[in-house]
Amino acid sequence: MPQPYDRVFNFSAGPSALPVEVLEQVRDEMLNWRGAGMSVLEMSHRGKHFESIVQEAERDLRALLSIPDGYKVLYLQGGATLQNTMIPMNLLAGGTADYVVTGSWSKKSFDMGSLVGGACCAWDGKSTNYDRLPDLERLDYSPGAAYIHFTSNETIHGVQFLTDPKLPAPAVCDMSSDILSRPVDVSKYALIYAGAQKNMGPAGVTVVIIREDMLERTPEKFHPMLDYRLQAENGSLFNTPPCFAIYVCGLVYKWLLKIGGLAAMQAINERKAGLVYGALDDCADFYTPHAQKEARSLMNVTFRLRSDELADSFASEAKSRNLVDLKGHRSVGGIRVSMYNAFPVEGAEAVAAVMREFAAKHG
Amino acid sequence: MPQPYDRVFNFSAGPSALPVEVLEQVRDEMLNWRGAGMSVLEMSHRGKHFESIVQEAERDLRALLSIPDGYKVLYLQGGATLQNTMIPMNLLAGGTADYVVTGSWSKKSFDMGSLVGGACCAWDGKSTNYDRLPDLERLDYSPGAAYIHFTSNETIHGVQFLTDPKLPAPAVCDMSSDILSRPVDVSKYALIYAGAQKNMGPAGVTVVIIREDMLERTPEKFHPMLDYRLQAENGSLFNTPPCFAIYVCGLVYKWLLKIGGLAAMQAINERKAGLVYGALDDCADFYTPHAQKEARSLMNVTFRLRSDELADSFASEAKSRNLVDLKGHRSVGGIRVSMYNAFPVEGAEAVAAVMREFAAKHG
Repeated sequence: MPQPYDRVFNFSAGPSALPVEVLEQVRDEMLNWRGAGMSVLEMSHRGKHFESIVQEAERDLRALLSIPDGYKVLYLQGGATLQNTMIPMNLLAGGTADYVVTGSWSKKSFDMGSLVGGACCAWDGKSTNYDRLPDLERLDYSPGAAYIHFTSNETIHGVQFLTDPKLPAPAVCDMSSDILSRPVDVSKYALIYAGAQKNMGPAGVTVVIIREDMLERTPEKFHPMLDYRLQAENGSLFNTPPCFAIYVCGLVYKWLLKIGGLAAMQAINERKAGLVYGALDDCADFYTPHAQKEARSLMNVTFRLRSDELADSFASEAKSRNLVDLKGHRSVGGIRVSMYNAFPVEGAEAVAAVMREFAAKHG
Repeated sequence: MPQPYDRVFNFSAGPSALPVEVLEQVRDEMLNWRGAGMSVLEMSHRGKHFESIVQEAERDLRALLSIPDGYKVLYLQGGATLQNTMIPMNLLAGGTADYVVTGSWSKKSFDMGSLVGGACCAWDGKSTNYDRLPDLERLDYSPGAAYIHFTSNETIHGVQFLTDPKLPAPAVCDMSSDILSRPVDVSKYALIYAGAQKNMGPAGVTVVIIREDMLERTPEKFHPMLDYRLQAENGSLFNTPPCFAIYVCGLVYKWLLKIGGLAAMQAINERKAGLVYGALDDCADFYTPHAQKEARSLMNVTFRLRSDELADSFASEAKSRNLVDLKGHRSVGGIRVSMYNAFPVEGAEAVAAVMREFAAKHG
């Protein structure tokens, strides 16, 4: 099935597909943004045009996630990775913090937290190669933990928490790979962070949603670019922000509002995942899923074939039909089907069809 | 004179004008980059397409600046501002560093360096509100300084170093506002850094050119996103880089090569600055330049009128002719004419004409 602009179905685990209509708008506004006489790429971040872009993006994000009063929205740089350093630097306040390690990304958060100090591992799924999730509300946490960190979706292993836990210490959550994919109860969290490049926009901007009492923990006279309080006081404009990436995020927020918000988005994501897991379960003697059923991610479907050669052959067959970037991460192997918000249902149908045909042919 | 796409002459001090043909190419490649079937905004940073983009951008930057062997080129996030923290964190190694304070930006570098520790002020132009520059080769520096920091161009005060000094300790230079505006002898520097958004591309990426022996100073087991050595080892791909911003920088490098490289660019910049300083000097009884003649910046021309009201009136008159963002920074007042690489000669002619007419009318 030919796609508009000869585009492929892009299963990249991130950066990843954006809505075609967002890209068309970016294209159409590239030389002259709405009569401003200049591109968003060229605007002063202190001028009225960019001010309207950043304010509208914040308003729309607050509407989408129903962010309560008492939370600040920050647009920062350095990816979720820099947050792994900034979170303990700002929130630890000499205490300890608990980390729930459910895959590669939360392991990275724990390791980077350990470099700052005071990081404890509350759970680690390594012994089963991160194929399952704990019940977050029933783990033993450190008494008086400064915060409890977890990662809502693990892109490499394909496991996802689909509810918002009630935790005994401030919850800090890396939502880089599933933010805006379902409604979230923000009030359950002290800090949510997410690199934009999977569900929200381009690489180069990280959204931090932080409860205001957390801002009081930052050390005095801290390094400005690592200081949540200072960034919040300056509305993320302490220095020049990644203006263009914020603009594209804003267009994605508008697209999400237009399709009906996050409940509608979740229904679409469930439909896409249902198509692929359906094919996986129907061909259970041919494909071996990595994640346990109860922990399955709606964003990243991970499975193996009986050999690496057969997985390569699957990826080649898919590529010949314009389905690209399906190879699994080396730590899990096999195939990874990543389908973030903007990934179209037609692409899920197409990969499910390839899965069924390939199993019938080689099974 | 109507501009293509009804564009204005954008005198923003940064982010600022990009070449029209670069914006056209970005527009044309937005939905499908060169047959890849996806936008640069959607590409995996580990795939062959982005790999070719980042490698070509590095090759072209090395060609433009004649970067010698033994230097690494890093693409980082957080702006020049984060570099003000990373530089002492990585290079100080328990020693002291000297800072030459010639305006707001180098003052910020010194203040942020002081937060890390060991920062000494080698010179400060505050007493004359940063209207002049010292001879960098004749200052008294701290014996055994870990490095000497200076800022090649001060956008707010409009003073610029136009030669590359030979210093007694490793030279660290913030070239955010004049990189690629003239040929530079990179071998005179231990570290050059520059936020892209004035002379190179969009906000959200910072280029660091670092001599390899400097990488040995980073503390062991340092925070990954703040660690030059780790970033260099990973070719700036330790985490997801600001892919799109790097892509646009790459297109700007191609544009610079096409117009003849940095010597040609310098000639154009001298022509633009000559037009504006010519008007300034010819109307010397009406306008008061801020910078001393010997220190004048080719990028930012700063001057005052006899009252704030008259300066506002000048800015309004210019705006009515599609010349926008000419108001000076509050710490200097008056008017600031910022003309980075991509700013067209026609815009310099237009603002010079307004200056002459306005002086004739109100003088």
